[in-house]
Amino acid sequence: MKLLKEKVMTEGIVLSDQVLKVDSFLNHQMDPVLMREVGAEFARLYAGEKITKVLTIESSGIAPAIMTALELDVPMIFARKHKSLTLRDDILVEKVYSFTKRETNEITVSKKFLNKDDRVLIIDDFLANGEAAFGLARVVEQAGASVVGIGIVIEKSFQPGARLLEEAGYRVDSLVRIASLENGTVTFV
Amino acid sequence: MKLLKEKVMTEGIVLSDQVLKVDSFLNHQMDPVLMREVGAEFARLYAGEKITKVLTIESSGIAPAIMTALELDVPMIFARKHKSLTLRDDILVEKVYSFTKRETNEITVSKKFLNKDDRVLIIDDFLANGEAAFGLARVVEQAGASVVGIGIVIEKSFQPGARLLEEAGYRVDSLVRIASLENGTVTFV
Repeated sequence: MKLLKEKVMTEGIVLSDQVLKVDSFLNHQMDPVLMREVGAEFARLYAGEKITKVLTIESSGIAPAIMTALELDVPMIFARKHKSLTLRDDILVEKVYSFTKRETNEITVSKKFLNKDDRVLIIDDFLANGEAAFGLARVVEQAGASVVGIGIVIEKSFQPGARLLEEAGYRVDSLVRIASLENGTVTFV
Repeated sequence: MKLLKEKVMTEGIVLSDQVLKVDSFLNHQMDPVLMREVGAEFARLYAGEKITKVLTIESSGIAPAIMTALELDVPMIFARKHKSLTLRDDILVEKVYSFTKRETNEITVSKKFLNKDDRVLIIDDFLANGEAAFGLARVVEQAGASVVGIGIVIEKSFQPGARLLEEAGYRVDSLVRIASLENGTVTFV
C-alpha cells in the first residue's frame, strides 16, 4: 500500500533492529485519512468473503478496525486486555504473551457478540511474533465462529508471526511488510 | 442526536442508578455507522473553530475521535493510561482518578504532538465525574495549547462532570444527556 509505505519511510523511526516507532501516524498520534485508506484496502481484500464482524484488540487496533468495519458495514469488536481476571461465565478469555512488555495478559470478548455463524476478520496494527493475532483467533474459535483472515497494517516479516499464522492455516494480509530494520534503515519485502 | 438516543433506548442496559451499559454499540462492540455520524456531528458543532488536533484517551474514545478527526481533517492523538511511570522528559503526564475502578492512573501524551499553537477538541465516550476530561484538558494546557471544547458521546448529567467543566470555563457538547437512570429507566434531559 503506497501511502502507508511513504508514511513509514518519511515518519517511521528505527529505534533498533527490532523496533520501528510509528507513533506519529499509527499508535499514538493517528492520521485519520490514512486510517480510512487502510480500512478501504482491507475491505477491498475481503470483499465477497461475507465478513460479519471485525475483531481487534485495544488500543492501536481500534482505528484501523473501525474504518474497516465501516467499509464492510458490519460491527467492530475490540477485545480488552486485563492483567488477570476472576473467572466469569459470560466472557471468552485467552492468554496472550507480550514480548515487548514481557508479561502475559488476558484478553476478553463478551460471549454475546460472537456466535458460531460469525465470519470474522481480525485486524491489528502490528504483526511481530503473532501472539496477539493467535489469541484473537482462539477467542473466535472458542465461540465456534470462523476466522476468515487476519489483516495487519505493518508486518515485521523478519519476526516469525506471519509464517506461524500461515502454517496454522490462517490467511494473513499485511499492507506493508518489512524485511529488515538493520543499519537504521527500513527495507521492505 | 436522534440516532444515538434511539440506540441508548433500544440497546442500553441500566445496571443501576449510576451505571448504563452500552457495550453493544459504544465501548466493546462498536457500531461504525453510528461512530461516523457521531464524528460528523462533533465536526459540525466545531466547524469554524479552527481545530488543529483531536485528543482522546484509550480505549473507548478512539473510535469517535478518529471519525471526528477525519471529518475535521486534522490528526487525532490518544492519551495512554498507565499505572505509574518513571519520570521522562519527553512526555506530558497528568494523574486521573477513576471512580469506576477506584484507582489513580497516569495519562500521557508525547510532547512532540502538542504545541502552543494547537487548538484542541477533546473527545470522550462518557462524561460522569469529569476526571478524564479534566486530565486531558490539563495535558493540553501543560503543552501551552488551547482547549477549544470537550465533545462527549453520552453525558450522565446527574453526575457533576459537565457542571464542573463548565464552571471551569470549558465548552462542553454532549450528544445525549441523561437526567436519570432511576427505576431501571433512561430519562433524557
